[in-house]
Amino acid sequence: MASEPNTPGRFAYAGLDRVLHEKARLGLLVSLCTRATDLTFGELKQLCSLTDGNLSKHLEVLADEGLIEIIKGTRGNRPETRVRLTESGRQRFLAYLAELERVVRDAIPEPTPKPIPDSI
Amino acid sequence: MASEPNTPGRFAYAGLDRVLHEKARLGLLVSLCTRATDLTFGELKQLCSLTDGNLSKHLEVLADEGLIEIIKGTRGNRPETRVRLTESGRQRFLAYLAELERVVRDAIPEPTPKPIPDSI
Repeated sequence: MASEPNTPGRFAYAGLDRVLHEKARLGLLVSLCTRATDLTFGELKQLCSLTDGNLSKHLEVLADEGLIEIIKGTRGNRPETRVRLTESGRQRFLAYLAELERVVRDAIPEPTPKPIPDSI
Repeated sequence: MASEPNTPGRFAYAGLDRVLHEKARLGLLVSLCTRATDLTFGELKQLCSLTDGNLSKHLEVLADEGLIEIIKGTRGNRPETRVRLTESGRQRFLAYLAELERVVRDAIPEPTPKPIPDSI
């Protein structure tokens, strides 16, 4: 049920967790949550159009919060970094998305059906 | 048409304008865009659960960008500040909301219908 439009804090959106709401991190989380598998550093860099430095910085923030796991390994002789959403990360992201949907619904309300005129 | 899932920059969300995406400013814009009229400083403060200082700071950012107009007046003998979304602000916010909807759709894809099995 929607809150009354004038309730204090009605548009405070406390659920827009700042860790997840930051634009680059939001893109990373969407990338990861839509895949059944993990993604490499290179794939994430391309999908989200980030520089190496920016990607590293944002992955560190997400890992520190326990939202993702960073797996360092090798493929052939080359180091390869893989990234995976944790289960708690997925849950926290879904809660964030629910709040994001609320923002969109609040801003673009469903058109209210025209009242049926009383017959004369 | 949705881009291919592996297109470079697929999840970069360039349309998530940082001026509008910031959580407090997003709440302010939703408050303003859902009203036919302007809102007072006090009403916005309550609706968005912001302190005087934070509200002033964010309104300044929005006004500097031409998204809102701040009208200083008096009611009775008391100073009253009213805030209104500009027409260009409304347009820019609607473009931002379209990108926000894309984020939600990307993250929570519509279930694809099961393929109809070939008859044997």
